[in-house]
Amino acid sequence: PDIQSTGDKRNVAINKVGVTNVRYPISFRTPGEGHGNTFIHTVATINMFVSLPHEEKGTHMSRFVEVLNDYHEGITSDTIREICVTMQDKLKAKDAFLELSFPYFIDKKAPVTGQSGKLDFDVTFEIASGTTDDFIMTLKIPATSLCPCSKEISEYGAHNQRCEMTVKVRVAEGHHLWIEELFGMIEKCASTQVFSVLKRPDEKWVTERAYENPKFVEDIVRDMAVTLNADDRIEWYQCFSENFESIHNHNAYAFIECDKRPESA
Amino acid sequence: PDIQSTGDKRNVAINKVGVTNVRYPISFRTPGEGHGNTFIHTVATINMFVSLPHEEKGTHMSRFVEVLNDYHEGITSDTIREICVTMQDKLKAKDAFLELSFPYFIDKKAPVTGQSGKLDFDVTFEIASGTTDDFIMTLKIPATSLCPCSKEISEYGAHNQRCEMTVKVRVAEGHHLWIEELFGMIEKCASTQVFSVLKRPDEKWVTERAYENPKFVEDIVRDMAVTLNADDRIEWYQCFSENFESIHNHNAYAFIECDKRPESA
Amino acid sequence: PDIQSTGDKRNVAINKVGVTNVRYPISFRTPGEGHGNTFIHTVATINMFVSLPHEEKGTHMSRFVEVLNDYHEGITSDTIREICVTMQDKLKAKDAFLELSFPYFIDKKAPVTGQSGKLDFDVTFEIASGTTDDFIMTLKIPATSLCPCSKEISEYGAHNQRCEMTVKVRVAEGHHLWIEELFGMIEKCASTQVFSVLKRPDEKWVTERAYENPKFVEDIVRDMAVTLNADDRIEWYQCFSENFESIHNHNAYAFIECDKRPESA
Amino acid sequence: PDIQSTGDKRNVAINKVGVTNVRYPISFRTPGEGHGNTFIHTVATINMFVSLPHEEKGTHMSRFVEVLNDYHEGITSDTIREICVTMQDKLKAKDAFLELSFPYFIDKKAPVTGQSGKLDFDVTFEIASGTTDDFIMTLKIPATSLCPCSKEISEYGAHNQRCEMTVKVRVAEGHHLWIEELFGMIEKCASTQVFSVLKRPDEKWVTERAYENPKFVEDIVRDMAVTLNADDRIEWYQCFSENFESIHNHNAYAFIECDKRPESA
Repeated sequence: PDIQSTGDKRNVAINKVGVTNVRYPISFRTPGEGHGNTFIHTVATINMFVSLPHEEKGTHMSRFVEVLNDYHEGITSDTIREICVTMQDKLKAKDAFLELSFPYFIDKKAPVTGQSGKLDFDVTFEIASGTTDDFIMTLKIPATSLCPCSKEISEYGAHNQRCEMTVKVRVAEGHHLWIEELFGMIEKCASTQVFSVLKRPDEKWVTERAYENPKFVEDIVRDMAVTLNADDRIEWYQCFSENFESIHNHNAYAFIECDKRPESA
Repeated sequence: PDIQSTGDKRNVAINKVGVTNVRYPISFRTPGEGHGNTFIHTVATINMFVSLPHEEKGTHMSRFVEVLNDYHEGITSDTIREICVTMQDKLKAKDAFLELSFPYFIDKKAPVTGQSGKLDFDVTFEIASGTTDDFIMTLKIPATSLCPCSKEISEYGAHNQRCEMTVKVRVAEGHHLWIEELFGMIEKCASTQVFSVLKRPDEKWVTERAYENPKFVEDIVRDMAVTLNADDRIEWYQCFSENFESIHNHNAYAFIECDKRPESA
Repeated sequence: PDIQSTGDKRNVAINKVGVTNVRYPISFRTPGEGHGNTFIHTVATINMFVSLPHEEKGTHMSRFVEVLNDYHEGITSDTIREICVTMQDKLKAKDAFLELSFPYFIDKKAPVTGQSGKLDFDVTFEIASGTTDDFIMTLKIPATSLCPCSKEISEYGAHNQRCEMTVKVRVAEGHHLWIEELFGMIEKCASTQVFSVLKRPDEKWVTERAYENPKFVEDIVRDMAVTLNADDRIEWYQCFSENFESIHNHNAYAFIECDKRPESA
Repeated sequence: PDIQSTGDKRNVAINKVGVTNVRYPISFRTPGEGHGNTFIHTVATINMFVSLPHEEKGTHMSRFVEVLNDYHEGITSDTIREICVTMQDKLKAKDAFLELSFPYFIDKKAPVTGQSGKLDFDVTFEIASGTTDDFIMTLKIPATSLCPCSKEISEYGAHNQRCEMTVKVRVAEGHHLWIEELFGMIEKCASTQVFSVLKRPDEKWVTERAYENPKFVEDIVRDMAVTLNADDRIEWYQCFSENFESIHNHNAYAFIECDKRPESA
């Protein structure tokens, strides 16, 4: 007897049941300028869930990872939504949820010498299919913040530090937003950007740019909001910055959430 | 000139601004049975935020940690709500938010020998004061789960593993719920409990209890929901269990959310 | 003036100076059975160091990551040692050290149905070139342990849990050891193995195998030692197992170190 | 039959066997200036091990945590060494090892206003008793580093960041070193110190001090070495600094190890 298929009398539906912490190789198609198939290979940590109605005792745990293993040619950015729909189908569920977190890489040129290098940052995709179809993308973008107050009151210097700007967006139906696009929009919101390799003229440039462009954590998160407000493809967002203060052992933080859809006003 | 006090023209209000990752000693009063002041000493990781209206440029970062440092006699469970109100007051804010995460300890007796030992688990408090007053308590409770399917299909044995049950509750106004009470209600929902010290007769007892009481992750989370539904002090909850499967390198997971208030139906 | 090139008067040599926490895509050649170039794509977290003599003020930080960025075709298992030598050369150092940690994947078949799936685990390489050439490989292998005492004293059942076996080996000069080989040798040392996908006949198999093969953490680590002692390619090792006890909120642990070289006796 | 007490034929001694990740409340006596019993209450994560000869099958796992639970009045800095000896005794072992990691707190005054606040940092104790008696103390001290090269080449400003200086020392027999003493010696080695609360005159002070005192990671670790070399109570040390570069998404790092005892020359 398959215990999972017996009924359940508790009258409690389960919102999400499935597997967490599955690690898997995955490839992402980049917005290549005419070169066709350029892929970034990375490793995702994956959570997979379905909803379970109150009268069903259990789901079929082994089928979740089977869905991944069925992609013999490899999982790519082109097949992620399909995986969520396949999950829903194979588990005969009303709702399926797929979450993937992975390091991502962008080739960035140093600001003066133009020397190229890879910058890494974390990305999360949250996909839902069934009762509601959904796609939320989160980027954690490293940058530099320089304190306006410290600059103002000091005869020389100003404390600055690495910060991490997190942006979580829901893209309106029918629109598309590349990781690279969102990254480029948001990294401009800090005092200056970080780079993989900086030679001496580059280091001079970023040091002076940061000093010329002081920002409180409140300024950074407001500039993120202004940027996200201006892009009509984004219908909802959360954004925050966490600044790893060089003068404290704790962090400064600011957070904004905004839903642009009229019905949510 | 105090830059933080100059105006801001971007017309963007900030939901939360403040400090994160502040570590601080804190004491908790336990529900002593007539012995009076029994305290547990632990260390909290603290986040402190206020809301900031669109026309104000910045908050006063140094005041957040000052509020903590003003408690020369030490921060206790009795003063936590007061800290949140003081924050709101000192920062002249419409809303203040205080989050504390800390390890907590319960003295538990082994089931047969009665030998006593400390069991540790993680607790989080989320407090809001201002526009909405709120108090949410989260416990992460370790226990044992034993797989019904594995027991059913195998001639002997059954795979079992440590699981972690997370319960997040909002207590209705005018009611009180001790950490110890919620812990006691929830740890019964797994196949068996974990202990600090188990002598041989105790180990026999927990091994046999788990085998007699097999539960899928779906069963555990449903039993958590049934328990939480039955307590009228709890008006909203989220609960989930994550089982660190002994036969896989990934985890099984199930999640339920419920809002009991009539207006949310 | 290039400050790094001025002298230093403190008379203190630095053992290691460089960069930590660099994330980078990397490919590993697998021991393909005649299919030629089969590669696993993963992401490494990389530390890169050189030694610095007492009279030199500083190293050239930007050159470390430049070495990685120079591999336009991608970093592979074939070029790792070369990277360490290049570092030593470009930094004009007596010693260079390269550490890479990355998730790795093995295709494993379920024990009865033969269904294939990817199993993930963590690998670290530590490479040195210069005064001493060295190569140390570390694998963290998930498996199942089942307690002999619990089985012995209980009328039915036995507590079991996921464990993680860590093995760190130095391979003798002129010899080679694949990740896949070491993984295969060590995963046999636990009560049973873990798998990516288990259908019902497979779950019955692993449950019964674990019950038939109870092992204390002491047994697991001793069987690891016996296995490592028997392979002449391995001239030094450390091994340990950490068992995430299903009946406690703490872990059981055992550790053995052995140097087989005669001069170390 | 007590399985652990049966013999073992594999002829493999175990260096360390025991429990890991035990969390426990602990109190530390501070170097009070005449006020007597001033204690800091914190929570330690504890590992406890003994050695096991080749002919013994297993140790007695339940006794490790029992040793902790026997301290009904609480574990303090005064009883830590005693716990290690008790472990060795109760487990009838040739060697016992005790490791404790915990957050620690120091009251620090802001440099200009003198406002007091708690600074947190991580401490580890490693204790051995038996064949060799040993005591190693590790502190992870947060501070600020400011880049000399960035200052030199830029017209204004200089990149700076939080750094973490780690110092691990073995104190010579018959000597004593307070956590507070070692902290005070080492935090001076960075460009400037971090504080819990900084008002405007304090922030001006730390900003200017950092700018006047630029240091490469190589300078920081060399100044740590010079400081540690000068204290005769310290007979061996390792020290390193990790600087969370504000201009990169990776860290700068430098490490020095030194054994002062003549026989190790």
